[in-house]
Amino acid sequence: MTPTACLLVIGNEILSGRTQDANIRFIATGLAQAGIALEEVRVIPDKARRIVETVATCRVQFDHVFTTGGIGPTHDDITAGCVAEAVGVPLECHEESYRELEAYLGKEKFNKARQRMAWLPRGAVPIRNTVSIAPGFSIANVHVMAGVPSIMQSMFTALLPTLEGGAPLCSVAWHADLREGTLAEGLEAIQHDFPELDLGSYPFERPDGRRGVSLVAKGYDEEKVEAAGERIKALIESLGVTPIAGEPAP
Amino acid sequence: MTPTACLLVIGNEILSGRTQDANIRFIATGLAQAGIALEEVRVIPDKARRIVETVATCRVQFDHVFTTGGIGPTHDDITAGCVAEAVGVPLECHEESYRELEAYLGKEKFNKARQRMAWLPRGAVPIRNTVSIAPGFSIANVHVMAGVPSIMQSMFTALLPTLEGGAPLCSVAWHADLREGTLAEGLEAIQHDFPELDLGSYPFERPDGRRGVSLVAKGYDEEKVEAAGERIKALIESLGVTPIAGEPAP
Repeated sequence: MTPTACLLVIGNEILSGRTQDANIRFIATGLAQAGIALEEVRVIPDKARRIVETVATCRVQFDHVFTTGGIGPTHDDITAGCVAEAVGVPLECHEESYRELEAYLGKEKFNKARQRMAWLPRGAVPIRNTVSIAPGFSIANVHVMAGVPSIMQSMFTALLPTLEGGAPLCSVAWHADLREGTLAEGLEAIQHDFPELDLGSYPFERPDGRRGVSLVAKGYDEEKVEAAGERIKALIESLGVTPIAGEPAP
Repeated sequence: MTPTACLLVIGNEILSGRTQDANIRFIATGLAQAGIALEEVRVIPDKARRIVETVATCRVQFDHVFTTGGIGPTHDDITAGCVAEAVGVPLECHEESYRELEAYLGKEKFNKARQRMAWLPRGAVPIRNTVSIAPGFSIANVHVMAGVPSIMQSMFTALLPTLEGGAPLCSVAWHADLREGTLAEGLEAIQHDFPELDLGSYPFERPDGRRGVSLVAKGYDEEKVEAAGERIKALIESLGVTPIAGEPAP
């Protein structure tokens, strides 16, 4: 069975429109390659009650929960405490992280606010990164990462090989200068023959205004994905249009 | 009271990493300006059970639910039926939309798959757009829009003035070449004095690698936001650094 995952993006800045999300796609792509199915993403504000409830709900519903954001030294960095509460363990000083932070920052700069960063849920395993000393960690099936993209990416890259995945998600895409409505029936027939795959149809618009559609077959069984891809190609050809191979959308 | 909202992004293509989301920020920004608080975003797959349950849950929890994706003519376009089920009304042919689709496409092209697009939840009010004839609609407190950004934007722009909002979300931002840990205590003191505002601290990295932090005060009371902004500016100056005004992050 392919393990499942949920990503929680913690941060008011996405919800207010201030910031364009730059983390979801990186994590989604990495999980797909690792054979872990990302089944939901939630963007939630950095309010303690919301974080605790969401982590507690999602970690029962999915095999893994990944979080980004809220692990710095400021008052709105409350993820560690909330995750501890959701998992049901106390927050305590993680001695090794404390020493590392102190050594990195120097005793003088290692003020009260920064010392808070060394407080992790009891039993947490740090997630290393090569960009900063931000204190990412895993506790049970919850993996807590930074929100800054470069730091998150370094953490996620270190974390991913430690998680057990299934076969990677495979996909085949064909693009065509067709409208969805023209090929909907043919596509549904293919979906019917490959119930274990996701067949998607994604209209797009080229910069010059011409519209087309990308047909994508996705799943964890490579042979079936290939076979469905051939059927999609033949469907486009049967409608008198030349299929264009490739990903992403042209 | 500021009305609350949740956005549901329906689509496997974001979850598989195939597509970068291009809708969240547009909607988030529009809602903030309209005085509607976006409190959650969920990205979910186009599986009927998941859509029905999520819409049913979220429309009780928030004043408004916005959805994007899944309203085209193909087999994976199941949003209208799922929303009907979540709201508890039947899906039925919306005569006006049927006639419009038929007139637009011509009788010959208006095949079975495309006719499905005219089936809306009973009582639905169409959301117009100037880009296509995609059948967006509102039913109760659920607003269903296309996933293609240009069409979604046209629908959202038509829809937003029909919704009652509160005062718009205001924000003030100051950027500084400082690290979060240095100003965390000062910032917490300001947050303490303005409990009704969100004070956020967002580290960033310039293209040349230099790091800084953006301090943002946000809320629905413009005077208090201004006052908190002055306090933030003074805090940065007290740390011997020149505050840089503006938004977004430099």
